[in-house]
Amino acid sequence: MKNYTSIQNIDNINTWIEEAKELKSNPLKYNELGKNKTLGLLFFNSSLRTRLSTQKAALNLGMNPIVMNVSGDAWGIEFADGTAMNGKTAEHIKEAAAVVSQYCDIIAVRAFPTLTDKEKDESEEVLRSFTKYASVPIVNMESATGHPLQGLTDAITISEHAKISKPKVVLSWAPHIKALPHAVGNSFVQAMQKMDVNFVIANPEGYDLNPQITGDTPIYHDQEEAFKDADFVYTKNWSSYSQYGKILNINADWMITKEKLGNAKFMHCLPVRRNVVVEDAVLDSDSSLVIKQANNRTYAAQLVLKKILENYV
Amino acid sequence: MKNYTSIQNIDNINTWIEEAKELKSNPLKYNELGKNKTLGLLFFNSSLRTRLSTQKAALNLGMNPIVMNVSGDAWGIEFADGTAMNGKTAEHIKEAAAVVSQYCDIIAVRAFPTLTDKEKDESEEVLRSFTKYASVPIVNMESATGHPLQGLTDAITISEHAKISKPKVVLSWAPHIKALPHAVGNSFVQAMQKMDVNFVIANPEGYDLNPQITGDTPIYHDQEEAFKDADFVYTKNWSSYSQYGKILNINADWMITKEKLGNAKFMHCLPVRRNVVVEDAVLDSDSSLVIKQANNRTYAAQLVLKKILENYV
Amino acid sequence: MKNYTSIQNIDNINTWIEEAKELKSNPLKYNELGKNKTLGLLFFNSSLRTRLSTQKAALNLGMNPIVMNVSGDAWGIEFADGTAMNGKTAEHIKEAAAVVSQYCDIIAVRAFPTLTDKEKDESEEVLRSFTKYASVPIVNMESATGHPLQGLTDAITISEHAKISKPKVVLSWAPHIKALPHAVGNSFVQAMQKMDVNFVIANPEGYDLNPQITGDTPIYHDQEEAFKDADFVYTKNWSSYSQYGKILNINADWMITKEKLGNAKFMHCLPVRRNVVVEDAVLDSDSSLVIKQANNRTYAAQLVLKKILENYV
Repeated sequence: MKNYTSIQNIDNINTWIEEAKELKSNPLKYNELGKNKTLGLLFFNSSLRTRLSTQKAALNLGMNPIVMNVSGDAWGIEFADGTAMNGKTAEHIKEAAAVVSQYCDIIAVRAFPTLTDKEKDESEEVLRSFTKYASVPIVNMESATGHPLQGLTDAITISEHAKISKPKVVLSWAPHIKALPHAVGNSFVQAMQKMDVNFVIANPEGYDLNPQITGDTPIYHDQEEAFKDADFVYTKNWSSYSQYGKILNINADWMITKEKLGNAKFMHCLPVRRNVVVEDAVLDSDSSLVIKQANNRTYAAQLVLKKILENYV
Repeated sequence: MKNYTSIQNIDNINTWIEEAKELKSNPLKYNELGKNKTLGLLFFNSSLRTRLSTQKAALNLGMNPIVMNVSGDAWGIEFADGTAMNGKTAEHIKEAAAVVSQYCDIIAVRAFPTLTDKEKDESEEVLRSFTKYASVPIVNMESATGHPLQGLTDAITISEHAKISKPKVVLSWAPHIKALPHAVGNSFVQAMQKMDVNFVIANPEGYDLNPQITGDTPIYHDQEEAFKDADFVYTKNWSSYSQYGKILNINADWMITKEKLGNAKFMHCLPVRRNVVVEDAVLDSDSSLVIKQANNRTYAAQLVLKKILENYV
Repeated sequence: MKNYTSIQNIDNINTWIEEAKELKSNPLKYNELGKNKTLGLLFFNSSLRTRLSTQKAALNLGMNPIVMNVSGDAWGIEFADGTAMNGKTAEHIKEAAAVVSQYCDIIAVRAFPTLTDKEKDESEEVLRSFTKYASVPIVNMESATGHPLQGLTDAITISEHAKISKPKVVLSWAPHIKALPHAVGNSFVQAMQKMDVNFVIANPEGYDLNPQITGDTPIYHDQEEAFKDADFVYTKNWSSYSQYGKILNINADWMITKEKLGNAKFMHCLPVRRNVVVEDAVLDSDSSLVIKQANNRTYAAQLVLKKILENYV
């Protein structure tokens, strides 16, 4: 694994979870590993958890993080090949990625989808271009179709809080007022498919995720049925995949309530809109794991950086 | 003192001043104290001095500073309880503060007032929410009603430059073209009330600060009378408190001149508008302490961080 | 050399080039030199290479870099003397520079020209004000009329890739859709004038650079003639100097092609607009030095910082 761009880069998720737990128990154990190494964090989009936790992870390993908001700090970047660049973009990714590779030992990139151009989003133009043209390892800090640092975080969190050997995990769509990406949902599905859990998905009709990702994971269009005997309810909104990027229906009755949740633990990647996605009573109860989950972002990132530092830097 | 949110958190200002002077004489003495500790600096508003001096203070203590411009870098934050978040805000302070607490050992926050909603400003919604929901210590880098790092800085500076045992200190309002907060004025008043100085305030009618803060400090509406025999003239504009956030009158004749100043030292927190608040002849003379004052921002911040690191991290 | 503001600050470019090559062969050799020293990087304009390579250079020397986007992060800065600051600017450079000097051991500044006010640009108002009012050394990260970190970089790169003792170097104007500064061109001219190279300039009529800078360097208005037997073709667009800041003619036929280039090496400071300034076939070939050139930005900056640290901090 030179690049960490997808949950599919994880060879053995159980081993990774154990390694992450060890890092969490002693975060500074490897704080000489990244000495004099630089992590470049390039943000094409907003970030709070990823921005802070990835820097914290780098610092725990002794690395120097350098943060850049690509849009505001630098130049518009061109990704298309062969075009005459006489428009808004001033620098081609070929140069940008090769150049940044000379200043940073690892490059982490966040670039959200358009949600209007399915083909472009699925081609993962930004992330793929970085892996193609950079000469150093690339870490995905959420791309058009995946958020594998989040997916790994979620696997760690479920492992920590599981009380039975093969817990039932439900990924539930929830309402939202804006059209949101599929990235978190996709990576969570892929992570669960690698774990020894009883995993199902619940979403309204028209909101099925990419079938190439969901594969043979059962999909329920009846939330109540899906939630029966659940140990973990992971909640996330996403826009339609089949009618790409559209909000078909707000389906406000899909909001997560304490009553629906029952004895299950509540998970969400955050940020979460209170009383739209989930009611206060859930988030403010002991059933919510969201803060503990966010804490694990540091150790997921630290594990990924550690593995890359050990083998490719 | 777990949090440093107000001048009122200072138990003994004379002791603090002495400790700050010691830090200033040997800034790197405690540069192991903050090793592997992270200071998160969250800016909801612009900053130059606070941004740089607080980072410098953290570095002097061996800490890792991580800076975030909340508005541009992250998500809109909701502070109200119980609302359905179907508007512009995407993350509730309950989550944001709890999450950031897991990546940072101390959180410093800057959040200016609305100047339109007195009740909201006086409730110190942002700062109070951080102290309520964060699990780590909070430092106020200027809130709606106070700027206690500045107030401590000013106390240190007056102590350094006082030539007599109980100097006369005047806080003088000065003209400005924009409606400005009361925070610096308030914290300066509170700091002076704790010191052994002869302290008076001068401002035009209609510009009296919050009487709960000024208490029995004498307020003059005649600038000349107030300045008589002054050793220090601390200047700052603020908008009206009684007609909240309004500019009642520019009162250009309240600008500080060399003639008015006499033998007194001139102080200002900066940034200062030249020839509006104070004439060039003052700022460019030896009577001005503004640059030395700004230098003390580092040691005020360093003292506060040191005290928190020693006791609460 | 207390400040590095121009190529003219280089006493002996050959010695500097050798020193830079030594740093490149062992970048961490002096990583104690900058310990507990802070480099403030102040950006009035966008930056990618300069932003990252200057931070990397500082880190290689053990310094703490602190980055600030002046426009977004801080206050509008006034440069004019004696004005009543009742407009958009909130802080005078006199205070800003003096204050930042107290938090940073070296200040690096980027401030582009207006391209509308020749006199103002040539006065180097921003850079000159910083050198005048700061009490610490100033490094030019590209000013109105010069980009000496780039010029030094280019000299290093030519020295590394020269195959004969006195290579022919051509600075060629190339087409662009926006009016661009003269800074890179100027500093390249000045660097070449200090080196033992056969140096000529090629640009369309009306695009001659400032004659006080080009001096007796031959200027060709016929690109083909200038390129004859060239070993290096350094390409850059700039707007007209005589009709200051204007685009007189796009001159699309001045784009650099593989055919025109022949056996010469291609250089450009980046960012570069592909198929406008230069065709893909050049950038994607072994003739292009642009990525290697960008790598040398780190060592040019590191050499400048090292010299300043050794003598003035």
